Amino acid sequence: IQSKLPGVSTTIFSVMSKLAAEYNAINLSQGFPDYSADPKLVELVNKAMKDGFNQYAPMPGNQLLKENIAEKVKNLYNIKYNPDTEITVTAGGTQAIFTALAAIINSGDEVIIFEPAYDSYAPTIRLLGGLVKTYELAPPEYGIDWDMVKKLFTSSTRMIILNSPQNPTGSILSKEDMKSLIKLINGTDILILSDEVYEHLIYDEQEHNSVMLFPELRERSFIVASFGKLLHATGWKLGYCLAPELLTKEFRKVHQFNVFSVNSAMQQAIAQYIQEPSNYMEIGSFFQQKRDYFRSLLAESRFKLLPCHGSYFQCVSYSEISEEKDTDFSTRLIKEFGVASIPVSAFYQKATDHKIIRFCFAKEDATLALAAEKLKNV
Amino acid sequence: IQSKLPGVSTTIFSVMSKLAAEYNAINLSQGFPDYSADPKLVELVNKAMKDGFNQYAPMPGNQLLKENIAEKVKNLYNIKYNPDTEITVTAGGTQAIFTALAAIINSGDEVIIFEPAYDSYAPTIRLLGGLVKTYELAPPEYGIDWDMVKKLFTSSTRMIILNSPQNPTGSILSKEDMKSLIKLINGTDILILSDEVYEHLIYDEQEHNSVMLFPELRERSFIVASFGKLLHATGWKLGYCLAPELLTKEFRKVHQFNVFSVNSAMQQAIAQYIQEPSNYMEIGSFFQQKRDYFRSLLAESRFKLLPCHGSYFQCVSYSEISEEKDTDFSTRLIKEFGVASIPVSAFYQKATDHKIIRFCFAKEDATLALAAEKLKNV
Ligand SMILES: CSCCC(=O)C(=O)O
Ligand SMILES: CSCCC(=O)C(=O)O
Repeated sequence: IQSKLPGVSTTIFSVMSKLAAEYNAINLSQGFPDYSADPKLVELVNKAMKDGFNQYAPMPGNQLLKENIAEKVKNLYNIKYNPDTEITVTAGGTQAIFTALAAIINSGDEVIIFEPAYDSYAPTIRLLGGLVKTYELAPPEYGIDWDMVKKLFTSSTRMIILNSPQNPTGSILSKEDMKSLIKLINGTDILILSDEVYEHLIYDEQEHNSVMLFPELRERSFIVASFGKLLHATGWKLGYCLAPELLTKEFRKVHQFNVFSVNSAMQQAIAQYIQEPSNYMEIGSFFQQKRDYFRSLLAESRFKLLPCHGSYFQCVSYSEISEEKDTDFSTRLIKEFGVASIPVSAFYQKATDHKIIRFCFAKEDATLALAAEKLKNV
Repeated sequence: IQSKLPGVSTTIFSVMSKLAAEYNAINLSQGFPDYSADPKLVELVNKAMKDGFNQYAPMPGNQLLKENIAEKVKNLYNIKYNPDTEITVTAGGTQAIFTALAAIINSGDEVIIFEPAYDSYAPTIRLLGGLVKTYELAPPEYGIDWDMVKKLFTSSTRMIILNSPQNPTGSILSKEDMKSLIKLINGTDILILSDEVYEHLIYDEQEHNSVMLFPELRERSFIVASFGKLLHATGWKLGYCLAPELLTKEFRKVHQFNVFSVNSAMQQAIAQYIQEPSNYMEIGSFFQQKRDYFRSLLAESRFKLLPCHGSYFQCVSYSEISEEKDTDFSTRLIKEFGVASIPVSAFYQKATDHKIIRFCFAKEDATLALAAEKLKNV
């Protein structure tokens, strides 16, 4: 049979996690914590199952959860989303991204993405018959020159995908970025898909410039959020999508035929858990401590640290260590030094060779210390 | 914005379940049990969460679960599927259907479906740019004349969707059906998507003619199965897809960018639970008893029972009771008589008026008795 995604193989995250397991390496590749979710939260799931939350949840999501998401969003950003018409619970951030694209992209539509980019964007767009228009960000700051973005616009431009804090670079969009973007799309009907799964993981007192804070953007945006990241439970596959009513309507049309609905007990548990903001308000400083700790450890190595303003990823350059391509280097790091990372070239469609790899620091301090010990030998 | 699914509104299952709740009616509409999953299984989930199964599962599924699925399939059908290359765990049956279609259907491809049909098939095909070719089944037997199916074939025919036992009619495919199908597709490269989520719910000593039992079909089939149905836990959203390696490869390419992976604790729990066949072998007789009980109760009503060979649905004709269209009748049944059903016209794309509605009998006997009391007043 002829493949619809001929160039695509297994995602780099699966490949590296598998190799890490094979070589018994410390896994700083795929983005997930190596510590457990809050036992209180686990107990709430258990209670929800015992209380009978084992049958289909409502298609758009558990009512209490949608209401408490609205409440959380209002507390954090002072913006109101209507639980009935503007919030949909999803099977994780990735499914929200896929569903928003599937709801909007027609054959021939162009979507602008910023690379390095999360590896699902480009193939999903192509699978749907869309065309990927790529703006390449340059290390070490990975900033955006919006005049150059404008040059990518055509009459077929249908959507722009934003991702702040960004995976893999940890860069964030400033207020000035948002204002430039507003000017750029003014007068067009370009939509925005804003992947904000790291909204809470932002450091050094900087603010998260969610697209929802800008009315000109909010009215045309799908915003994707992740409970996996918020609650240290990436394996639960729970997230949500915020979008104005008209967009949510189209989103749900696809959602109902894609997954139909999402795990009912876990929705009920999260609904109760996030009612108490103290259960998640400290997550930013929690991860900032980890970032600082990991950076201080790596400062003693031959790796060069790139900036990290948000997300749970630290990118480093190894250009002073090796001439190898990043996939080769990253693989050798597993086999010879026992530490798994992600080669940043995996976040580009075309071949690149910046000699940068990504580490995930969402790990126990002891894990980070052990990894750093090994990395100092490189 | 222009909708990609202009004719589509909220699925009938959400609409009817919501109306049932509003009018405090007995909900025999959407297909789900009103009793709980096995407490042993719930306890296994709790244990898995406590044991740390809270981060991403492997993309194609938990290894033990895939192995135990292979074992279960071998025990039941004496067919071997390779856990590593031919089995993928999904977020329910619906996501498996969506993903298989997304992996295969290109713009202009034709897919043959049999109506009445589960309501996700047609819109999903259209969303992907495919064309729906419909074979209409006739009540009360809903049998297939394969020579007429052949007339639907064109050079663009890419796939046929089978569903046995069928939702909503409870009809099943016989060995003769399968043999006719084999003849029909011999020499073509038409693929099969076989929705077998009710594989265990088959009655009167009849056998489930899974496509996997026929090598000429197996080699070109995606088979979709559901743990929600098997384990009385539709809200867990767990299922799987069996397909030969080449098809699984394409399936996983899409799966990884759609949901990436599926709830890790529940996968681990189900893996352990299905290791013991006695935990699910009785499900067929369990539901046959419910079917028989519900039918005996309704025999005293003015509804006319259609055959039910499998699934957890009983269709009835109300043609001797009312002239109303089935959506009107079904709505009035909720409001005036306190029982929710699904109008079977919802399973057709074009307008139909067979005066048939569907009841779900996956309910406590007491619920069925209470519903029947109310239905006798109609
Ligand atoms: C969905 S697996 C990838 C997890 C992640 O976001 C990452 O490692 O970048
Ligand atoms: C996914 S909701 C619909 C459940 C079901 O299979 C049905 O009621 O037909």
